[in-house]
Amino acid sequence: MPSSLTHLDDDGRARMIDVGAKPATRREALARGRMVTTAEVVRLLVADGLPKADALATARIAGIAGAKRTSDLIPLCHPLPIDAVTVDLRPSDGTVVIEARVSTTGRTGVEMEALTAVTVAGLTLHDMVKAVDPGATLTDVQLVEKTGGKHGRWTRDQ
Amino acid sequence: MPSSLTHLDDDGRARMIDVGAKPATRREALARGRMVTTAEVVRLLVADGLPKADALATARIAGIAGAKRTSDLIPLCHPLPIDAVTVDLRPSDGTVVIEARVSTTGRTGVEMEALTAVTVAGLTLHDMVKAVDPGATLTDVQLVEKTGGKHGRWTRDQ
Amino acid sequence: MPSSLTHLDDDGRARMIDVGAKPATRREALARGRMVTTAEVVRLLVADGLPKADALATARIAGIAGAKRTSDLIPLCHPLPIDAVTVDLRPSDGTVVIEARVSTTGRTGVEMEALTAVTVAGLTLHDMVKAVDPGATLTDVQLVEKTGGKHGRWTRDQ
Amino acid sequence: MPSSLTHLDDDGRARMIDVGAKPATRREALARGRMVTTAEVVRLLVADGLPKADALATARIAGIAGAKRTSDLIPLCHPLPIDAVTVDLRPSDGTVVIEARVSTTGRTGVEMEALTAVTVAGLTLHDMVKAVDPGATLTDVQLVEKTGGKHGRWTRDQ
Amino acid sequence: MPSSLTHLDDDGRARMIDVGAKPATRREALARGRMVTTAEVVRLLVADGLPKADALATARIAGIAGAKRTSDLIPLCHPLPIDAVTVDLRPSDGTVVIEARVSTTGRTGVEMEALTAVTVAGLTLHDMVKAVDPGATLTDVQLVEKTGGKHGRWTRDQ
Amino acid sequence: MPSSLTHLDDDGRARMIDVGAKPATRREALARGRMVTTAEVVRLLVADGLPKADALATARIAGIAGAKRTSDLIPLCHPLPIDAVTVDLRPSDGTVVIEARVSTTGRTGVEMEALTAVTVAGLTLHDMVKAVDPGATLTDVQLVEKTGGKHGRWTRDQ
Repeated sequence: MPSSLTHLDDDGRARMIDVGAKPATRREALARGRMVTTAEVVRLLVADGLPKADALATARIAGIAGAKRTSDLIPLCHPLPIDAVTVDLRPSDGTVVIEARVSTTGRTGVEMEALTAVTVAGLTLHDMVKAVDPGATLTDVQLVEKTGGKHGRWTRDQ
Repeated sequence: MPSSLTHLDDDGRARMIDVGAKPATRREALARGRMVTTAEVVRLLVADGLPKADALATARIAGIAGAKRTSDLIPLCHPLPIDAVTVDLRPSDGTVVIEARVSTTGRTGVEMEALTAVTVAGLTLHDMVKAVDPGATLTDVQLVEKTGGKHGRWTRDQ
Repeated sequence: MPSSLTHLDDDGRARMIDVGAKPATRREALARGRMVTTAEVVRLLVADGLPKADALATARIAGIAGAKRTSDLIPLCHPLPIDAVTVDLRPSDGTVVIEARVSTTGRTGVEMEALTAVTVAGLTLHDMVKAVDPGATLTDVQLVEKTGGKHGRWTRDQ
Repeated sequence: MPSSLTHLDDDGRARMIDVGAKPATRREALARGRMVTTAEVVRLLVADGLPKADALATARIAGIAGAKRTSDLIPLCHPLPIDAVTVDLRPSDGTVVIEARVSTTGRTGVEMEALTAVTVAGLTLHDMVKAVDPGATLTDVQLVEKTGGKHGRWTRDQ
Repeated sequence: MPSSLTHLDDDGRARMIDVGAKPATRREALARGRMVTTAEVVRLLVADGLPKADALATARIAGIAGAKRTSDLIPLCHPLPIDAVTVDLRPSDGTVVIEARVSTTGRTGVEMEALTAVTVAGLTLHDMVKAVDPGATLTDVQLVEKTGGKHGRWTRDQ
Repeated sequence: MPSSLTHLDDDGRARMIDVGAKPATRREALARGRMVTTAEVVRLLVADGLPKADALATARIAGIAGAKRTSDLIPLCHPLPIDAVTVDLRPSDGTVVIEARVSTTGRTGVEMEALTAVTVAGLTLHDMVKAVDPGATLTDVQLVEKTGGKHGRWTRDQ
C-alpha cells in the first residue's frame, strides 16, 4: 500500500493529480449499495397496482444523470468522457439493491462515477420514501469490480 | 403510514409536489453515515505528520457544497434557501463518522440536503482513499433527527 | 404594448431587472408544446408491450429537473423558489403533447420555468427517438395561461 | 427502422448506451427553429435605434452556452468535447429564425447539442419579449442536417 | 475587528454560518475591477466599425449569469434570491472598467455576487483578447459600496 | 497582432471558434493573482493557533473545482479534459499570492482554466475575510506562462 494519499502533495495540500501521461484506454467500474426500508415501502416503490409508476425510473434516471455530475461534486476528481452508464434497481423484501456500471475511454478510472450513480439513485429513493419511512438507510455503498488501467482488474472478495 | 408515495400522482406519474400552502418556517435536519476503511488509511487521512493536510477539509467542503446542489441532483426535490450547513468528520479506528446538520427557513424540510452533504463528503473520502483501499465502504447513511414543519420533531430510535 | 424591452436599459444594455419592490405572491404558469414524429415512433415511446418502460418517465423527470435549471440557462431570468412542477405527456397518433405547470411564491412569474420544462422534456423525447426518426419536430411551444402578479390572469385565445 | 428505442434495454429500462466501440470522428449537426411573435416585437428585438442593443446577442450567447449544458439537461445524452458552436438569428417580419451549428470530434453525434442551442436561444428570446407578447411561440425546432458517424450525411427533405 | 473568521468554528473547521436569525431585508452591493490591456485591443473590443459587435455584450451577459452561480462557486457562500443585477463596462484608453451592482431581499449581503459578476465579466474579456494580448490583467477587483443589513452602509474610502 | 478578435465573426457575432482541426496535444498554463488585505487578516487566514484550520484549504479546493467549471462560466470557452490542477497559496505580510497551474491533453489551451482557478480561489478568500476586511482587493490576475499548442511557449516579461 502506498505510504501517502496521491491526492495530497508532500506538504499535504490537495491537488488534482496529473493523469496526462496515462493512456486513454477503456475502463469500467461496477458499484453497489442498498436502500434499507420496510417491505411495505418497497411495495409502494414497485407500485404493482400502477403498471407505469415512475418511482424506480426516477431513481434510475437520477443515478445516470448523477454519474455525469461526478467531477462537479467531488473536488479532486477528473472530468471524464463517459461512454456508458446503467443503473439497475432490484427491489426485494424491504430492500432495494442499487447497482451502477459505468465505462469510459479515458486516462483514469470511473470508480467514482459508478459510486456517485449508486448514491444519487439511493438519495432519490430516500427522497421518495422519506414521508413514509424517515428511517430509511442507504448502506454498503462500495466498489464491486473495476477493469482497465495500469492495475487491471480488481474484484471485491465476496 | 400513507398508502401511497406523495411524489407520485394517482396514475403513478412523478411530480414535484406543491409546497406553496405550507408556511416558510425554521427546519433542521441531522444526518449521519460512516466511511469504513482500514486503520492505516484513516491515519493517512488524518495525516498527523502533516499538520495542515487537506484531506478531511476537502471532504468537509465538498459536503457543504454538495448540500447546495441537492435540488439539482434529486429530480423531485424542492430548491430551498439554506441558512446553515456544518459537516463534522470524526475519524477513529478504521472508520470516519460523517455528520451533517443543515437548516433552512423554508416550506419543506432539509432532510435531503443533510443526507446529500453526508454522501458527497463520503464520496470525496472514497475518492481520496481509493488508490490505497479500493474496498472502502460508505455505510449507514441515514437521518438522525429533524425538527420543524407540520410533523415537528422526529428522532431515530437508538 | 410597452415601447421597449424591459430587459434592456435606455442604452440597449442587457440587465436583470429589479423585482425587489414586487411582493412575493403565488404565481402559476401553464405551458404546452408538441413533439411531432410518426405513429410507429409514438408506439415505441409508449411501449405497450413493456409495462414499465421508462421512455415517457425519462422525459417527464427531465422536464421537472429542467424547470429548476431555468435561471441557469436563461441569462436575464431571476432565480425563484419553485413550489411545484408537473409535466404531463399525452401521446396520441404520431404526436406527444407536452404540458408543464409550475408554481412559485415569488416576486416574478414562472412562465419561463414552465416553458423550459416543456422544451427540456421535448428535447429528451427527441434524444430517445432520433435514431428512429431524425426528422422529429418540437413545435408550438407556448404559454397557455398564467395567474398571479400585478397583471393577474392571462389566457391564450383559443 | 429499428423495432425498439436504443435508449431502453430489453426490459424497457433507461440507460446511457455504450458508445465506447465507436471511433472518435468529426461530426456536425445543424438545427433550426423559429420564434413567432409580432412585427412590432421583432422591431424591439432588433432595436434599430440602439445600435449596440444586446437583445439578439443575449439569445446568441445563451444558445452557445446552452449547447455546452446539453448532457447536463438530457438524462441519457453523452457528454461530448464540443469543437465549435455558432448560433445565427435572422429576424424578419414577425419571426426570428434561429439556426445552430455544432461540431465535435467524438464518439456520437451532436444533434442534441444543436437542438439544445436552438431551444435555449429561443427561450431567451421568449424571456425578453414575454412582457410585450406573452403569446410568442417557439416552433418547428428540428434537425436540418447532420454529417459524420456510421450513417454519414442526413438531410431533411425540404 | 473580530478576532477570528466567522466561516471557521472554534476548531478552525469550515462551515456555512447560520443566517436563519437574520431578517430578510433589502441589501445591495457595488463592486468594481479593471481589465488592463492595450489601446489597440480595447478598440477591437469596442469594434467601432461593427455597430452590433458582441464582445462587450458577451462579457456583460456572462457577468450577470455569473452572479447567479456565486453560491455554486464559493463553498461557504449562502444561496440568495437575487432581485437585480447590472454589469456596466466602460472601455477607455487601454482599460475596461467593470462595475457590477447586485441587490437581494435576503438574510445576508450580496457582496460576493457583485464581486463574482465583476470577475466572470473580466475573465470573459480575458478569453476574448487572449489571442491578441496574452498579457492582459484583471486588477483591482474590490467592493465599492454596500447597503442594508445590520451594519448598514459601507463605502470604500477614495 | 491580429486585426480582429477570433471570437467574433466578420459581422461581429460571438461564436465558439472551431478547434476541430487542431491536434489534441499537451498544454499547460500558469496564472497568478494576489489578494491584498491586512497583515492581521492574513494571520487569521493562516490561523497559526489552529493547526488544522480550513481557511486556505477552502480557497485551494474552490480554485481546483472552479477550474473544472470554466467552460460553464465563460460563454465562448471550449470544454476541455483537464489532466491536472494545482492551486498554491502563499500568504505573506498583508497579501496572499495565488498561483494555479492547469494542464490538459486537448485541442486548445488552458489559460482560462488557470485564470478561473486563481479568481475563484481569490473570491473564496474574499468571502472568508469580508466581515473583517470589506476592503480586501483581488489584483494582478494574469497569465504567467503557457506551453504547448501551435504558438509554443509564452512567458510574461518580468
